[in-house]
Amino acid sequence: MHFYHNLEFKPIDQNRPFLAINMVASLDGKVTSGGALKPGSIGSSFDRQTMNVLRSHFDAVLAGGNTIRQHPYYLGVPSEFEAWRVQNGLKAQPLTILLTRTGKLNPETPLFTNPPRPPLIVTTKEGALNLHPSIRDIAMIEIGEKDQDLKKLLQVLLSKHKINKLLIEGGPSINYQFLQARLPDEVFLTLAPKLIGATSDLTLVMGDSVLPKNNKITLISSFQQADELFLRYKIEWL
Amino acid sequence: MHFYHNLEFKPIDQNRPFLAINMVASLDGKVTSGGALKPGSIGSSFDRQTMNVLRSHFDAVLAGGNTIRQHPYYLGVPSEFEAWRVQNGLKAQPLTILLTRTGKLNPETPLFTNPPRPPLIVTTKEGALNLHPSIRDIAMIEIGEKDQDLKKLLQVLLSKHKINKLLIEGGPSINYQFLQARLPDEVFLTLAPKLIGATSDLTLVMGDSVLPKNNKITLISSFQQADELFLRYKIEWL
Repeated sequence: MHFYHNLEFKPIDQNRPFLAINMVASLDGKVTSGGALKPGSIGSSFDRQTMNVLRSHFDAVLAGGNTIRQHPYYLGVPSEFEAWRVQNGLKAQPLTILLTRTGKLNPETPLFTNPPRPPLIVTTKEGALNLHPSIRDIAMIEIGEKDQDLKKLLQVLLSKHKINKLLIEGGPSINYQFLQARLPDEVFLTLAPKLIGATSDLTLVMGDSVLPKNNKITLISSFQQADELFLRYKIEWL
Repeated sequence: MHFYHNLEFKPIDQNRPFLAINMVASLDGKVTSGGALKPGSIGSSFDRQTMNVLRSHFDAVLAGGNTIRQHPYYLGVPSEFEAWRVQNGLKAQPLTILLTRTGKLNPETPLFTNPPRPPLIVTTKEGALNLHPSIRDIAMIEIGEKDQDLKKLLQVLLSKHKINKLLIEGGPSINYQFLQARLPDEVFLTLAPKLIGATSDLTLVMGDSVLPKNNKITLISSFQQADELFLRYKIEWL
């Protein structure tokens, strides 16, 4: 059985979903290789499997526009996880949430042509106008400010969409926005035995300034599989 | 006893020193915080202690000009390590090796005013002309090409300076140059429970393009102390 099969999450704040980030990085902290965010370029197939096991615990999986444009698939779980989810009080598939300012999305990608559930697009007024009509037909849309008030967004996700546990899968700028708002409760990090080295490649968290330092990060667990490390950290915002 | 007290290094190539890199990084792969390379800004005091234990195994410790300019100290070990080193056939202090193209170094810093051994400066013809006379008095100097042939440099370090084991302590550009030349045999990585987040901060390895991929990186050992992980990886260049 996978070491993340029985994860317990303690609710932190009744007014918002529990929040975790999951990413895979190289030893030098890169999440892309040669600019590309290709599955398998950094993590192993076991890491990909681990990503699915993690998703299986969450009501929704969120990613930013850049990430989705590079890899335009529904952020779901393989069908063999569905029965387990339903037995555990979750919908068969997690909700895919897409955070995009611009609304520039390709309607002819698997995320929109054949999603198992209508994805939720969180965008601005301007972004909503950019959405292709066929995307507007298939997706749910939430409109917020240009600089999303993430706390407010989380409240809407909880009250309106019944999201109790939300998994964030990047990219670096999305991770930064949530961390800058002092919101994520945990980080799942796969440390892959790779060295990328290119200055232009992206790292796990990327924003304008150093993140608030008044937090305490604790290593909850560490598992090794082949030469990959699967690390789970708790973040307490002080 | 420290988990790195009894390290064994298997000689890889008789024509050059054994080569290891040691660095501390945040969970998001950063080695600086707000641009600064201050001791303690990322690693703990135990990490600093670990750095000394690692240095105690090596004939020489190498860093680049940027790193030394930010932290201009001799890359030595505390005096309590000296007896152990001598018993194990090493000089009491490792040799500090400084790789600098420009030769722009401040003579009024501890590295040059009071070093336990004359440091070795590896520079270019132009860089040698920039060296302050008082630095030329106290240091040994090796002159190479603008784009150092690192393999050749390593041969000189072995034959002329009797360096059998060399530890590289960055920065990111120095790490990149050695990795790009497919030379390092091991990487010691301290993964600190910190999130830095600033795009402008440096990562472990930074260069113009993605590193050669024909290598195999193996996790030799993993130790946890408080919430820090101390990871030792072997690199085989295929």
